[in-house]
Amino acid sequence: MPLAVSPLALPFPVLPPIAGVRFAAGMAGIRYKERTDLVLAEFAPHTGVAGVFTANKCPGAPVDWCRAALPGGTARALVVNAGNANVFTGRAGVASTSETADAAAGLARCLPSEVFIASTGVIGEVLPHDRIVAALPALHGTLDGDAWEAAARGIMTTDTFPKGATRTARIGGTEVRINGIAKGSGMIAPDMATMLCFIATDASLPAPVLQSLLAGGVDRSFNCTTVDSDTSTSDTVLLFATGAAGNAPVADAADPALADFAQALDALLLDLALKVVRDGEGAGKLVRIDVAGAVSDSSARRVALAVANSPLVKTAIAGEDANWGRIVMAVGKSGEPADRDRLSVGIGGTWMARDGAVVPGYDEAPVVAHVKGFEIEIAVDLGLGNGRGTAWTCDLTHGYIDINGSYRS
Amino acid sequence: MPLAVSPLALPFPVLPPIAGVRFAAGMAGIRYKERTDLVLAEFAPHTGVAGVFTANKCPGAPVDWCRAALPGGTARALVVNAGNANVFTGRAGVASTSETADAAAGLARCLPSEVFIASTGVIGEVLPHDRIVAALPALHGTLDGDAWEAAARGIMTTDTFPKGATRTARIGGTEVRINGIAKGSGMIAPDMATMLCFIATDASLPAPVLQSLLAGGVDRSFNCTTVDSDTSTSDTVLLFATGAAGNAPVADAADPALADFAQALDALLLDLALKVVRDGEGAGKLVRIDVAGAVSDSSARRVALAVANSPLVKTAIAGEDANWGRIVMAVGKSGEPADRDRLSVGIGGTWMARDGAVVPGYDEAPVVAHVKGFEIEIAVDLGLGNGRGTAWTCDLTHGYIDINGSYRS
Repeated sequence: MPLAVSPLALPFPVLPPIAGVRFAAGMAGIRYKERTDLVLAEFAPHTGVAGVFTANKCPGAPVDWCRAALPGGTARALVVNAGNANVFTGRAGVASTSETADAAAGLARCLPSEVFIASTGVIGEVLPHDRIVAALPALHGTLDGDAWEAAARGIMTTDTFPKGATRTARIGGTEVRINGIAKGSGMIAPDMATMLCFIATDASLPAPVLQSLLAGGVDRSFNCTTVDSDTSTSDTVLLFATGAAGNAPVADAADPALADFAQALDALLLDLALKVVRDGEGAGKLVRIDVAGAVSDSSARRVALAVANSPLVKTAIAGEDANWGRIVMAVGKSGEPADRDRLSVGIGGTWMARDGAVVPGYDEAPVVAHVKGFEIEIAVDLGLGNGRGTAWTCDLTHGYIDINGSYRS
Repeated sequence: MPLAVSPLALPFPVLPPIAGVRFAAGMAGIRYKERTDLVLAEFAPHTGVAGVFTANKCPGAPVDWCRAALPGGTARALVVNAGNANVFTGRAGVASTSETADAAAGLARCLPSEVFIASTGVIGEVLPHDRIVAALPALHGTLDGDAWEAAARGIMTTDTFPKGATRTARIGGTEVRINGIAKGSGMIAPDMATMLCFIATDASLPAPVLQSLLAGGVDRSFNCTTVDSDTSTSDTVLLFATGAAGNAPVADAADPALADFAQALDALLLDLALKVVRDGEGAGKLVRIDVAGAVSDSSARRVALAVANSPLVKTAIAGEDANWGRIVMAVGKSGEPADRDRLSVGIGGTWMARDGAVVPGYDEAPVVAHVKGFEIEIAVDLGLGNGRGTAWTCDLTHGYIDINGSYRS
């Protein structure tokens, strides 16, 4: 039974081609029927690559594969399947990744270590990689620079809409483009999510610079979002740089010549991260939590994430209840420095509690109207220092229970 | 609309009187209508007291009051109300506790600092303590040694059944009794829960000994349970010892003469803690997670609690899906030392995954039957050391969303 599209869905933007990047999507019949579940990408020679992966201590075989391939610094192909995560599959899982890489390397005429692999779906079932290997040659024949949306659809699991984003930036005098696609809906938490994200740019940047920019950008985007506090075993963000734009060389991520590119990459990552939250399993509302007045920025972020992960806050929002008392509870349980008597909480721009007590006679009308909307803003001021941080989440609804109480059946 | 009684409910046991302890319950109309919401207890002179309170950084005014009163070491009265937690209520909340204590002290002819106070319910609304003060004299006139069940009912909020337990133990040659009542259903997590628990014994023990025994017992019971990972602002466990049994004096909690008493107290605390989990909001199944093979006992407990707090594990159990892949995910996200390739997971006594991969051809029939039951057992062996730990939780169901999406309305 197909899931209803999230009420927070956004249309797929127009993603212009990136020189040196081609995608193809097809049906390998790994788990789903009558939908695409396999994506192949091929990159021009000398494409640089950077990656950030799950912090889960039980990562899938594809994450191990990518971590081992990353130091090579170049990527020629990417293979992604949906429906089976190839996690906790022992030796069979390792064999699946190497045989998939061998097959793709044969098609792309590269080394297996220049093939990157990601899988998403059920954990603990052996991945029938023979179906992937059998399907790859036909996909290779249909590679296309305009297939970004098809690729975004081919990597979906419980996602209800495909997710893409595009930005341009200047490096020196040269305009470069960045495109990205992502999938993710549940098992979404820092660090990071059942979240796959693939980004490509025509910028020419060395791998260490790419890695530095990507790691920082992921920390400021995906690592500030949570759907359900569960951290996937498969989270993967890969950034590919073909160099086709021919910009002047830059050797250091901190070079001011990269400021515009770094800002565009950050914006693209946050765009994709928020699309994942908008597609959170069962989500009816997008929630932003801004924390100020913390003893540090990192403390502020931990407080924001404690609010974002609180089932009681999330169910209150689902019920359109401006229950700031539960926000107070969540701030207090974060374990971060907080003083009840300096704490202020607001919703939708109205401060409901100030310095440890309810604001007498505050106007509830705008708050009630705000919580009936699709985008909810929570503000917390700890009153202790200058630390600031933001987290994003969605509400917790019957839809989440429906989806996750019967995922395998 | 009254909530349906939990399918995991247990009958209220017969709690014989404890010499020196009398309870009364009545209707103060604080929030609920046509049900008791106020409980008064009076204790014999020289009753010792110990207490353990929430770790939440934003505790309620009653928690502040009890923490300040505890060093006095004696208790003569206890006042508990349901429906309003008196949390985040500023100066008004402080005044509520002191005026309530003054009123109870006048009736019990003791110092206000010998009155203990607890409140549970909505956060952020000023407690109308005048209704409590007005209701107390009538309650005082009905104090009764046999009113334990009435007291357990009078402190309920979203609880669907009253919770009590009783044990006997020997100190030296003297038999002593321990009774306890508890309330709690949601906002339940270490440390500790929206959980109130009041225990009384006729044993004669000095306050420091009581405190040591209680703190250890709470750590081995309530602190191993979670309903929704949210930590209340009001958690309170109080232990009162009237001394009426006249046992021989014991000055040290580690005295072997206290071994039987300590064991009985631990068992009573775990009995009450599991009754709270059985009444977890929307709970359909009680889940026990046993972790072995960890690098330490504390690491094992953190892994067990990570599994217990995973929404994806809890929704899978609600759906009667033996989804051990999500258990692997939760182990991996705990952040504790774990090696995917040594990890084993079992459900209901059947090992489904061993040493990093599925057990080929394991018999799914007993597992399927087990997850259809009311009490689910999950076993995790990390294969790293000798650390062991256990946590208890309930499943995550539509009932939780129903209850918490409309709590204030």
